[in-house]
Amino acid sequence: MSIAVESVRWNNGELTIIDQTLLPEEVKYIQLKKPEDVWQAINRLAVRGAPAIGIAAAYGLVLKILNSGAKSAEELISEADQTAEYLKTSRPTAVNLSWAVERLLTVMKNSGEQSPDRLSRLAEQEAIRIHREDKEICRSIGKHGSELITRPVQILTHCNTGGLATGQFGTAFSVIFHAHQNSNIHNVWVDETRPLLQGARLTTWELRQADIPFSLISDSMAGMVMQQNAVDMIIVGTDRVAANGDTANKIGTYSLAVLAQYHRIPFYVAAPVSSIDFSISHGDDIPIEERESREITHIKNQAIAPADCPVYNPAFDVTPASLISGFITEFGVIAPPFEANLRKLRGRVLV
Amino acid sequence: MSIAVESVRWNNGELTIIDQTLLPEEVKYIQLKKPEDVWQAINRLAVRGAPAIGIAAAYGLVLKILNSGAKSAEELISEADQTAEYLKTSRPTAVNLSWAVERLLTVMKNSGEQSPDRLSRLAEQEAIRIHREDKEICRSIGKHGSELITRPVQILTHCNTGGLATGQFGTAFSVIFHAHQNSNIHNVWVDETRPLLQGARLTTWELRQADIPFSLISDSMAGMVMQQNAVDMIIVGTDRVAANGDTANKIGTYSLAVLAQYHRIPFYVAAPVSSIDFSISHGDDIPIEERESREITHIKNQAIAPADCPVYNPAFDVTPASLISGFITEFGVIAPPFEANLRKLRGRVLV
Repeated sequence: MSIAVESVRWNNGELTIIDQTLLPEEVKYIQLKKPEDVWQAINRLAVRGAPAIGIAAAYGLVLKILNSGAKSAEELISEADQTAEYLKTSRPTAVNLSWAVERLLTVMKNSGEQSPDRLSRLAEQEAIRIHREDKEICRSIGKHGSELITRPVQILTHCNTGGLATGQFGTAFSVIFHAHQNSNIHNVWVDETRPLLQGARLTTWELRQADIPFSLISDSMAGMVMQQNAVDMIIVGTDRVAANGDTANKIGTYSLAVLAQYHRIPFYVAAPVSSIDFSISHGDDIPIEERESREITHIKNQAIAPADCPVYNPAFDVTPASLISGFITEFGVIAPPFEANLRKLRGRVLV
Repeated sequence: MSIAVESVRWNNGELTIIDQTLLPEEVKYIQLKKPEDVWQAINRLAVRGAPAIGIAAAYGLVLKILNSGAKSAEELISEADQTAEYLKTSRPTAVNLSWAVERLLTVMKNSGEQSPDRLSRLAEQEAIRIHREDKEICRSIGKHGSELITRPVQILTHCNTGGLATGQFGTAFSVIFHAHQNSNIHNVWVDETRPLLQGARLTTWELRQADIPFSLISDSMAGMVMQQNAVDMIIVGTDRVAANGDTANKIGTYSLAVLAQYHRIPFYVAAPVSSIDFSISHGDDIPIEERESREITHIKNQAIAPADCPVYNPAFDVTPASLISGFITEFGVIAPPFEANLRKLRGRVLV
């Protein structure tokens, strides 16, 4: 295993995460002691990546109820409900966050358990299970996706979808990782992914750890490398997929999908089933987080634009299903028609 | 006149430029005393923008011959030839650079003048003429282009094409400037233009000086704002146009052109005739400058990627003529078929 890093760790009631805002210069683990710490860590992107956010949020809920003084199961569940709602507000776009905390609440409510102590232990076990499952899911996504790649190829990817963003292996990154094990990665084009540079800072770092060949480019160069026939496939992750296959992902993904269609390059989304929001029929209904201007006007503390410059800073965009070649899930690769084929995955559990 | 800044100044044999690498934090004029200073200033982008590079290079040649100890016209012309070849190596893509120095050489060689002193004065007058002409050309481009805009619109632009990049007014910027005078600019979307952030640093600064409303976005957001129907027109500048209309411009332009076609948005190139290289039949033959890795791995002195990260950093891309709606020149807007219609401009002089 060339990827040893785990971005989220749970050990006997202690939650630690790698502060991803400090990478690649510094690998620093920080301890999160209460839900407010988790909310802050998610909001400021110290922990990021849709699956990793879900795992961290689940543990954040557990931190609350393990340290609750609740006298009854009802009181504990009421506290858990409130904490879950609070944690969901840390970032609006990724569906995994609400999916994970809702899963804990469901287990607690359906257990019939009357002891607050045993009830909180049940929630803890469920959070650990979500975390373990995610590793298995990511491994499975990688294996299914790598079967699409039968010769050495050049892959373009965007943002960071690796072990840092998930329990382990990643989503789109896991496909690349497993294809590399099959000696089928000639080169990975890494979009730097402005504004927060997750590609430049994190994906390059993970690719180097895994000894996978890559070249870093600015987002504006993606079209040119496609024009030069230097991209065989594009694979990205996602924060939320609507029931019809419309896909929210890091800003810039939509442009890549349009460019892919123009150049007839396959465009895949690697997504655990937990990223599919069956309650939303199409992409227009996915809430898009708009983040602060400073992410555009500054890089770290360096100003790169005039003071008080007007800015538009959406963190995500929505790629219509019509531009997507397939979804790489833990159950295999899903081809169009997506509305019908994704629906078959609803409620399925891998492990 | 709300744009007072002139990026290149010539005063009695003294050449000063604004060091554009320090903008927007600092407006600093530096004096260039010899061709080597001009070469460095062009190469490190202290002076940039195809027309401004041509003007600076012409003065760079004049600096050499005004201070020459040449005993004869032949000797002076030989020195001028060598200096011209040297200056052309400072940046390979912009055609205006060689166009400007060749124009000085032609005047010198055709003059029949035998006095080295009078010959160097002729060259100086020609450089001043190029500079003055460029201001007139830019004004004319702005007027012709603004006639395309008959109601308040949102325009997306890339890189910097303003007064800083030219003698005055700019090329694409001049169209925006003149349309704004007609009250027809609702908003300008400014691509930040990685890696060197000419949009974030320079275009925002010039738009604010001209009191034109704008929003800064990262390059990766251009597709999303087009998807939201928030772009009525895209206008860019160019460093070199081939005889068939294929257009080299700042990296990222090609992606914008593909996105424009997908969204059925008019895509215009604002270009003085001096940017058209009639000696090159199509875009494949335009040399594309590849610049150092550090432009991608660092922003100013801030590292944003792991050390020794592999990088691809082409400074320009080529947009095929088929994706271009028209060329806005000093003689009017040129529609397809470009090969035939651009050819009619060959050798025409505005002033």
